[in-house]
Amino acid sequence: MSKAKKQIRVGMIGYKFMGKAHSHAYRDVPFFFDPDGVPVMQAICGRDEAGVKAAADKLGWASYETDWRKLIERDDIDLIDIGAPNNAHAEIAIAAAKAGKHVLCEKPLAMNMEEARSMLEAVQEAGVVHMICHNYRFVPAVQYAKKLIDEGRLGKIYHIRANYLQDWIMDPNFPLVWRLKKEVCGSGSHGDLAAHSLDLARYLVGEFKEVSGMMETFVKARPVGEMSGGLSASVKGGDLGEVDVDDASIFMARFENGAVGVFEATRFAGGHRNGNRFEINGEKGSIRWDMEQMNTLEYYSAEDEPGLQGFRSINCQEAVHPFAGAYWPPAHLIGYEHTFINLISELMNGIANGVKPAPSFEDGLNNQAVLEAVQRSAESGRWVSIAEVK
Amino acid sequence: MSKAKKQIRVGMIGYKFMGKAHSHAYRDVPFFFDPDGVPVMQAICGRDEAGVKAAADKLGWASYETDWRKLIERDDIDLIDIGAPNNAHAEIAIAAAKAGKHVLCEKPLAMNMEEARSMLEAVQEAGVVHMICHNYRFVPAVQYAKKLIDEGRLGKIYHIRANYLQDWIMDPNFPLVWRLKKEVCGSGSHGDLAAHSLDLARYLVGEFKEVSGMMETFVKARPVGEMSGGLSASVKGGDLGEVDVDDASIFMARFENGAVGVFEATRFAGGHRNGNRFEINGEKGSIRWDMEQMNTLEYYSAEDEPGLQGFRSINCQEAVHPFAGAYWPPAHLIGYEHTFINLISELMNGIANGVKPAPSFEDGLNNQAVLEAVQRSAESGRWVSIAEVK
Amino acid sequence: MSKAKKQIRVGMIGYKFMGKAHSHAYRDVPFFFDPDGVPVMQAICGRDEAGVKAAADKLGWASYETDWRKLIERDDIDLIDIGAPNNAHAEIAIAAAKAGKHVLCEKPLAMNMEEARSMLEAVQEAGVVHMICHNYRFVPAVQYAKKLIDEGRLGKIYHIRANYLQDWIMDPNFPLVWRLKKEVCGSGSHGDLAAHSLDLARYLVGEFKEVSGMMETFVKARPVGEMSGGLSASVKGGDLGEVDVDDASIFMARFENGAVGVFEATRFAGGHRNGNRFEINGEKGSIRWDMEQMNTLEYYSAEDEPGLQGFRSINCQEAVHPFAGAYWPPAHLIGYEHTFINLISELMNGIANGVKPAPSFEDGLNNQAVLEAVQRSAESGRWVSIAEVK
Amino acid sequence: MSKAKKQIRVGMIGYKFMGKAHSHAYRDVPFFFDPDGVPVMQAICGRDEAGVKAAADKLGWASYETDWRKLIERDDIDLIDIGAPNNAHAEIAIAAAKAGKHVLCEKPLAMNMEEARSMLEAVQEAGVVHMICHNYRFVPAVQYAKKLIDEGRLGKIYHIRANYLQDWIMDPNFPLVWRLKKEVCGSGSHGDLAAHSLDLARYLVGEFKEVSGMMETFVKARPVGEMSGGLSASVKGGDLGEVDVDDASIFMARFENGAVGVFEATRFAGGHRNGNRFEINGEKGSIRWDMEQMNTLEYYSAEDEPGLQGFRSINCQEAVHPFAGAYWPPAHLIGYEHTFINLISELMNGIANGVKPAPSFEDGLNNQAVLEAVQRSAESGRWVSIAEVK
Repeated sequence: MSKAKKQIRVGMIGYKFMGKAHSHAYRDVPFFFDPDGVPVMQAICGRDEAGVKAAADKLGWASYETDWRKLIERDDIDLIDIGAPNNAHAEIAIAAAKAGKHVLCEKPLAMNMEEARSMLEAVQEAGVVHMICHNYRFVPAVQYAKKLIDEGRLGKIYHIRANYLQDWIMDPNFPLVWRLKKEVCGSGSHGDLAAHSLDLARYLVGEFKEVSGMMETFVKARPVGEMSGGLSASVKGGDLGEVDVDDASIFMARFENGAVGVFEATRFAGGHRNGNRFEINGEKGSIRWDMEQMNTLEYYSAEDEPGLQGFRSINCQEAVHPFAGAYWPPAHLIGYEHTFINLISELMNGIANGVKPAPSFEDGLNNQAVLEAVQRSAESGRWVSIAEVK
Repeated sequence: MSKAKKQIRVGMIGYKFMGKAHSHAYRDVPFFFDPDGVPVMQAICGRDEAGVKAAADKLGWASYETDWRKLIERDDIDLIDIGAPNNAHAEIAIAAAKAGKHVLCEKPLAMNMEEARSMLEAVQEAGVVHMICHNYRFVPAVQYAKKLIDEGRLGKIYHIRANYLQDWIMDPNFPLVWRLKKEVCGSGSHGDLAAHSLDLARYLVGEFKEVSGMMETFVKARPVGEMSGGLSASVKGGDLGEVDVDDASIFMARFENGAVGVFEATRFAGGHRNGNRFEINGEKGSIRWDMEQMNTLEYYSAEDEPGLQGFRSINCQEAVHPFAGAYWPPAHLIGYEHTFINLISELMNGIANGVKPAPSFEDGLNNQAVLEAVQRSAESGRWVSIAEVK
Repeated sequence: MSKAKKQIRVGMIGYKFMGKAHSHAYRDVPFFFDPDGVPVMQAICGRDEAGVKAAADKLGWASYETDWRKLIERDDIDLIDIGAPNNAHAEIAIAAAKAGKHVLCEKPLAMNMEEARSMLEAVQEAGVVHMICHNYRFVPAVQYAKKLIDEGRLGKIYHIRANYLQDWIMDPNFPLVWRLKKEVCGSGSHGDLAAHSLDLARYLVGEFKEVSGMMETFVKARPVGEMSGGLSASVKGGDLGEVDVDDASIFMARFENGAVGVFEATRFAGGHRNGNRFEINGEKGSIRWDMEQMNTLEYYSAEDEPGLQGFRSINCQEAVHPFAGAYWPPAHLIGYEHTFINLISELMNGIANGVKPAPSFEDGLNNQAVLEAVQRSAESGRWVSIAEVK
Repeated sequence: MSKAKKQIRVGMIGYKFMGKAHSHAYRDVPFFFDPDGVPVMQAICGRDEAGVKAAADKLGWASYETDWRKLIERDDIDLIDIGAPNNAHAEIAIAAAKAGKHVLCEKPLAMNMEEARSMLEAVQEAGVVHMICHNYRFVPAVQYAKKLIDEGRLGKIYHIRANYLQDWIMDPNFPLVWRLKKEVCGSGSHGDLAAHSLDLARYLVGEFKEVSGMMETFVKARPVGEMSGGLSASVKGGDLGEVDVDDASIFMARFENGAVGVFEATRFAGGHRNGNRFEINGEKGSIRWDMEQMNTLEYYSAEDEPGLQGFRSINCQEAVHPFAGAYWPPAHLIGYEHTFINLISELMNGIANGVKPAPSFEDGLNNQAVLEAVQRSAESGRWVSIAEVK
């Protein structure tokens, strides 16, 4: 603590769901961790002045902007945090990089591969620190799963099955919010939910080789109402608007290392509010995890004594589990917001020490390639290799 | 009970795993149920005389045969029950039908569509009662799930995700048993496990429209040892033999009614001894089930009061649940063997009353079509419609 | 199998719930096991001739009697199985022993310590084999728990907490059946449910030293209707009759070995149809079990590697688990009725080989002492030692 | 938000576990809630200057004190928050009240009834706001349970069974920390863990009438090492010191409304890191909850349709659930620390608006009476009424 800390001045774009989650993380990270970089909550940015002003007060930002270009121009900002809708990511990230700002960007990185490539080039050229906000990597149980796999506890990986199940738009009268418009998001459950699952798969299993996928939109038109979500696109027209993104995305995969996978993302799985889950089977054991019981990792070892074999339910809230020791005594649970605190802690150390944090924009690009390969496959009805997309 | 019961004299082919399971069901069905047909355990058949003789004693059969043709010729047999390996199903079933015997056949019905078609024609021509032994339909919780869906409790179906996970051949030194030889089985996990999942999907969701699948064999050669399983093929040759069936089978599906599905069957999911599971999501609710907790049905109603919505864990062992009332008081569990007792009870009533039981050979043929469409898709890398296969 | 088997001719008293469960076990034991004694289902006995005749047909008994004294007099009976209500146990068991019959008796052994002592004396004097039907000891998961404890896997035992929760009489209009009359049962949930829990505690933890308990009757009067249950007492009088047994029984305990325990039995725990559960904590680990998921044993080892500690969910359906290998492949579940099959298998071996099976009438007496100590404590409001009762 | 907020200047005593938890809550409460009182983190107090200075920096306090008397004398403090060990509660709280400060006190309120009475008198005489920090009341699932009970959803309550299971001192070499010394704590698991369970019972079921309890110390001597925990007592002497508090506390209870209860608290339940659980059964339904899955409330309704009855697993993270709407979208979990944020939010509103928050020192006194009644019962071996203690 005696070492002089680097102050890292943050400019946050977006003040709704992700704006709140990121803001909270900046607020809390010095309380729990001791990163070499200390975030300074300098400015938050949104298009609606009344809204962003109120958010600045509430969330603890020193100032606000209504134009992200102005935010980027400010010389009292070191890091641009992009919580805007997907169609704004590329333009903002590239401009930020050119202005010499470090960049944290929400997922999915971009609307398409072209954008993603440009974004990666921009941050690499500028030499700034870049990170994509795949927060679920930062659940202690997930980090510990990674450690177990890296130590060879599962041996060669055979299977991953992952699904991300939600149900928030099952009501056909749920309005046509920005997350249901292709021009704003690029895709629906695919970029929103499957993006998380495949990032976790890349993190834990390895790189995808090829995929075969399908998509479905169950409710094809919805009431056009006031749009929620930061920087939302305005929707013109009559009473019902077309839903032009997927309600569900399903795909099969082969990985470079020989593993096979099956993935499903949907917003039409009644009873699942936020069911982000995976199971991985290897030659020596298995692990499984569910965000709805996020502190628990289930682990099966084929090397346990016969008669005593079975999945163990491990509460990953002990000092031995990554990030967990910073919080509370064993089994005094942490929650959703702590994934962001952990991630921001990593980012702060990365910026302060010039160490490249992960997941980076390279990860964002690689994830984008998988997303796009699945989309092409869904359109063409054939297997698509990642190489073909990249 | 005063009504005269029809005696139904059974000839059972196979005396290992399925032979034991079916024998037990014949033995117990009159104890728990009061079907209009009463099974008489007339003869059991297997190629090894010492083995089949011992089995006849142990399992309670009045006589035995070592040649299934002789069994079929006997005029004191009304029903032929086929528990032989898959490559023997067609020949036996057709001969039995021609001899005027009713036929119960283990799943999958046949090695291919051609065989399956011939079998169905044979039983239809002969006018005998026919049934395929998809025993998992007969779990009370599954039957109750069917009832809920038929009553419209889930509304329009959107999703099914089903997997059947086992781990019994993960050890690379596990021998090359008959279940791992294509000439005997036709396929591996696909016909053994996925066959159950897709039958449940047809039962609960409806007919498949098209599928896209993949298969994988993780351990490609295994020690050639003594083969286990009834009527097993002999294996010649050296120390290691080729595994020419799939260890895992994965496929995506579209159903005629617009639902989408994802399926996975594997024998390489460590920690899952017999994990036969599905979840179905509809517009009004969801159900899920796992054979490893077979008496429990989980049910979510989107029509439950807000704040009180969540999956209910229903123990389907009450008189209101199909078949359950025949056994014990509520929550006094039944097990695997009761699925066969229930199925045989249905078959006995079918034969006695001339009512066609389900699942029949039509179901067997339809299931075969899905199995074959997935295989073709796995080979070709494209979607295959059921119509194309049929 | 070549060894000549001893035929053991059984006379069963009671033909309702327990009559059915025991009958089924006699029927199935030779199918699954190869005990040295083979049960012969000679005669069943009940007071209502029409009822017992029908039961004999249905359950597979060769003959029937309407007077248990006649049954005992028959010289073609080797074993008397007492499934009559509690108040008939002593008279029947003593008469049977005097007639030189082996005796299996349902639990609780007796109405009080005096009866229990006389019963034990009678069987000991007669030199017959005696067993009390605590079937839950014979769940493979429970047997395996016993093995783990005996091997020292838990080390010194600190705690047991056990409860047996049911809800079948919560409706105040549920009639005043014989299980709610003290003259017939001696007690309510106490002798019916707590008897099982404390037997499991004695089996797994050791002998009780002292107890302090309480009892409660929530619904004190109930409609007098037709009584269900075998050999039911007739009830005279008006519309409502007094419930003179406990609806719930709770007690704390100290064991001879220093462990402490807490027990609860109730018929008023809504949502629990048959929730018989315990958890045991020792210095090196813990186990827990629930009859509603009877095939699963949960096991925690404090000696597991830090970071990987957690309860394992073990499906006790493998050959390594006691009794389980006689049935089906791993995780192909067994159910409630198999507890009786296992127990009868043990009894058949005991009778055939002159080996004393457990639990015996000694166990029944020891259990009775605990039951009675709790009752005395509930009446007096003080701790009662087992020594004082014995 | 336009209304002028009352600034509430806080002085916190204790900077270890509870000091951190409370500090974090003061920090975060304005971020998530909009209470009428805004906490100002004025000063933190501890005896070790280096420690408390570092804590002030880390936890975000503007200043620090090493003598709680000085803290209370400061006129820039409105609220004294007592996170000191139990034996210091009374003296500090009474002094704070006399100085006109509002008081928040950790549980258990006091070392004995006399202290508790004096504390309540002091705050009542001073007319200050007082609250006891039973944070588990503030879990949304628990608050919702209270709402369901108050609405009559369970009907008349029959049962509560609650246990609080931990395992952190099972290792006999774990040192003799202050939580194991009677002079500092008054009791062990009893005041630490059972205090929470009985507070929840009073909150949800109603007032206790009488109790019968027992206590046990499994490891009677432990290494005397450096003591952890704020304001820890120094321990003199040799290598091993006596553990003079309970390792486990068990008791039975009768409530004023006729319900019965059974309670168990222990630090010797291997595998339970923080298992705070209860189940309540009423005539119309049941609820159960476990802090290790804190966001889930399980609910059984006996009024659900037959065949569809079973415990529902409700994720209490929706806007309809108390406090939950302040955080994240449905099923985006909150954790342990949020119980404190919710409680502090309630306290801030209470102080700002002059509304008495609950649980208050009255609750603390009533809880103390139950704690003491159990202790007296454990010593005397008889039932002790709450009236007798009060």
